Amino acid sequence: MRKFVIKGNICYSKTSDELCIIENGYVVCENGICTGVYEELPECYAIFPFYDYTDKIIIPGFTDLHVHAPQYSFRGLGMDLELIGWLDTHTFVEEAKYSDLEYADNAYGIFAEDLLNSATTRACVFGTIHPEATALLMEKLDNTGIKAYVGKVNMDRNSLGNLCEKSPEEAFADTEKWITGNMGFENVKPILTPRFIPTCSDGLMEKLSILQQKYSLPVQSHLSENLGEIQWVKELCPGTAFYGEAYDRHGMFGKPLPAIMAHCVHSSQDELELMKKQNVFIAHCPESNTNLSSGIAPVRTFLDMGIKTGLGSDIAAGSSLSLFKAMAMAIQCSKLRWRLKDQSLAPLRIEEVFYLATKGGGEFFGNAGSFEQGYEFDAVIIDDSTLKHPQKLNARERLERLVYLAEDRHIIAKFVSGRKLFEKII
Amino acid sequence: MRKFVIKGNICYSKTSDELCIIENGYVVCENGICTGVYEELPECYAIFPFYDYTDKIIIPGFTDLHVHAPQYSFRGLGMDLELIGWLDTHTFVEEAKYSDLEYADNAYGIFAEDLLNSATTRACVFGTIHPEATALLMEKLDNTGIKAYVGKVNMDRNSLGNLCEKSPEEAFADTEKWITGNMGFENVKPILTPRFIPTCSDGLMEKLSILQQKYSLPVQSHLSENLGEIQWVKELCPGTAFYGEAYDRHGMFGKPLPAIMAHCVHSSQDELELMKKQNVFIAHCPESNTNLSSGIAPVRTFLDMGIKTGLGSDIAAGSSLSLFKAMAMAIQCSKLRWRLKDQSLAPLRIEEVFYLATKGGGEFFGNAGSFEQGYEFDAVIIDDSTLKHPQKLNARERLERLVYLAEDRHIIAKFVSGRKLFEKII
Repeated sequence: MRKFVIKGNICYSKTSDELCIIENGYVVCENGICTGVYEELPECYAIFPFYDYTDKIIIPGFTDLHVHAPQYSFRGLGMDLELIGWLDTHTFVEEAKYSDLEYADNAYGIFAEDLLNSATTRACVFGTIHPEATALLMEKLDNTGIKAYVGKVNMDRNSLGNLCEKSPEEAFADTEKWITGNMGFENVKPILTPRFIPTCSDGLMEKLSILQQKYSLPVQSHLSENLGEIQWVKELCPGTAFYGEAYDRHGMFGKPLPAIMAHCVHSSQDELELMKKQNVFIAHCPESNTNLSSGIAPVRTFLDMGIKTGLGSDIAAGSSLSLFKAMAMAIQCSKLRWRLKDQSLAPLRIEEVFYLATKGGGEFFGNAGSFEQGYEFDAVIIDDSTLKHPQKLNARERLERLVYLAEDRHIIAKFVSGRKLFEKII
Repeated sequence: MRKFVIKGNICYSKTSDELCIIENGYVVCENGICTGVYEELPECYAIFPFYDYTDKIIIPGFTDLHVHAPQYSFRGLGMDLELIGWLDTHTFVEEAKYSDLEYADNAYGIFAEDLLNSATTRACVFGTIHPEATALLMEKLDNTGIKAYVGKVNMDRNSLGNLCEKSPEEAFADTEKWITGNMGFENVKPILTPRFIPTCSDGLMEKLSILQQKYSLPVQSHLSENLGEIQWVKELCPGTAFYGEAYDRHGMFGKPLPAIMAHCVHSSQDELELMKKQNVFIAHCPESNTNLSSGIAPVRTFLDMGIKTGLGSDIAAGSSLSLFKAMAMAIQCSKLRWRLKDQSLAPLRIEEVFYLATKGGGEFFGNAGSFEQGYEFDAVIIDDSTLKHPQKLNARERLERLVYLAEDRHIIAKFVSGRKLFEKII
């Protein structure tokens, strides 16, 4: 099962410097895994079922390393504040609504449908503190066929009253019940999700650490996003040399278990070195960091240090689920950082942001985000024929252009681990 | 003729601080002019033809104050260079192709069609140096019904050999012939277009100045976009205290005749004061200034000084014709400027960028870009129903969201001066 061949303009990254493009080439899928990319199809595959996407652009799916599903409802709204004010004024007020399962059902249905129609094939998703609503989100995402880690959020201080766990003990019990009750999905798995240090007491972090070890769970959270936030963490956690230590002292900062930290706009050198050492992934969220006036993360430094890095939409501080848009903004922000702040860090290039959106973030899921042999067969088929042009363009140029111009309507088919999630008749 | 009423959520600016929204209100058009906005339709208009756009968002059209039509072909491509390198490597090479009328016909057809389908109702457009191709562009734009100023570009130095006018005298003759031959369009008018000082000799500027006076033409050009460019102008024009003086000494810097200068990222206080004094319009092009690593213009300063300002897509240094995108990027760039460069200038707000995109830029066309009494009846009807949401949103929130999320597919009808350009069945 799941053996087939697709034909089209195959585009994928080997490294952050090497973008491979085979014009009207072939990728072979066997049992959900890529087993080869070819300019000419070898004879032995001639009997395989064949999808003909000649002249279309074919990319591995994107991995969205950081997205808040309950915030999708207010994407594009309320971006007149910095992080802490934005959380208090807009975000917590909306997230509190997810105690209502009917509201959650409607809202998460919209989120799952739009994520399905995007170029994203894998995602690391925040829910709310509500176990039932988060389970509903997992079910809806599982039904799309997208691979996802989903987290019930933990927070027990500095939150709205109705969006605050009552005690570390209660949070432990609720979270364990949520974990054990939601391990059976085909495509979706639980991930431990302490919101961020300002809303998580030491007592809560200790309890979560026990669950993390007991169930070998990965962790996702936020780190060094905003200058005021960093100062606050310093006050909340005396004795830490940098923000990341507040996770690390509870064993929730990478090795041996995986972790993703979103943002790292203002991480110190020591913080970055610890992340490198412990294989912590950075979710770079350029639109979010712009909209909340947080700043611009030094992605060139992350790449030079070899820190594992991918892209996040960070809905709803970011307005769009599109990682095409995240790629464009990653380049654009790196240029403004170069111009306004530090000319020692060269702006990002197309090759680099495409790597971040595919193989860079995909690594959190194992071998994902490339068409290299042994990688999960995730593929997104793009028809850019409505983006008219008078001159000839090669596939490399068309891919470059899509970083700036792609809309969901251009995506005509999507595969995840060899399973076709949809195909639009055009 | 052209008497009718439209109903919907009417959104328009009075000032840069005052955004008026009438939910399911009425605008009356008489002879192409707005004659009133109402919450309840007065009895006397009950006999007028009626367009029912209940629940849709209705905005005045946008004015794109700065767009290069021949560059639309390579939108989203080749943005790895700063201004001068970008011009030499990508732009001049493409613009040279427009000596071929068949190529121009195809390319300008694509541009005109996409501009028609956008939310833009008025535009100030650069062509190339070629009079025939520029006349073709004017004809195609005129056929859309969009109101536009279009310029045959003038340049006689520092350009590719085949994209360089041979002498000021020849440029004068060609340009005069182009002006006199293209004054008869209904919707499109010629505008004098010296590309920018580095490509225009003093001799050429003198000749253009004569044409400007003789035919009372407005002028469009570029100003203080890039630090290297500004240094170059200083060397090319000894005796000028700032870049703008190089236009001003030829009488092409506003009063008595209108002028638009694109960018002004690095304008000095003296330059801005002269612009204020002489009513020069600034076309703020945030995506372009980002993509070419030029910097971020201090729009807050322009507004505080009362300098006339609008937005430009600046295709193809900007990738998108959408002024929704330009609005979002104007806000986003102003936030990054605040964070990275100067916290004395507050970030722009939705009210301000909506004003810039509508009434701010529209003023270059007279009374355009608002639904106030006496304004040209330009209107764009937006159906945002595919942008689903679980909560109730009012019209103000839906407009705010569109700044970040609107795509051309949401635009279902467009009017210019009371004439309906299209209506899509949905």
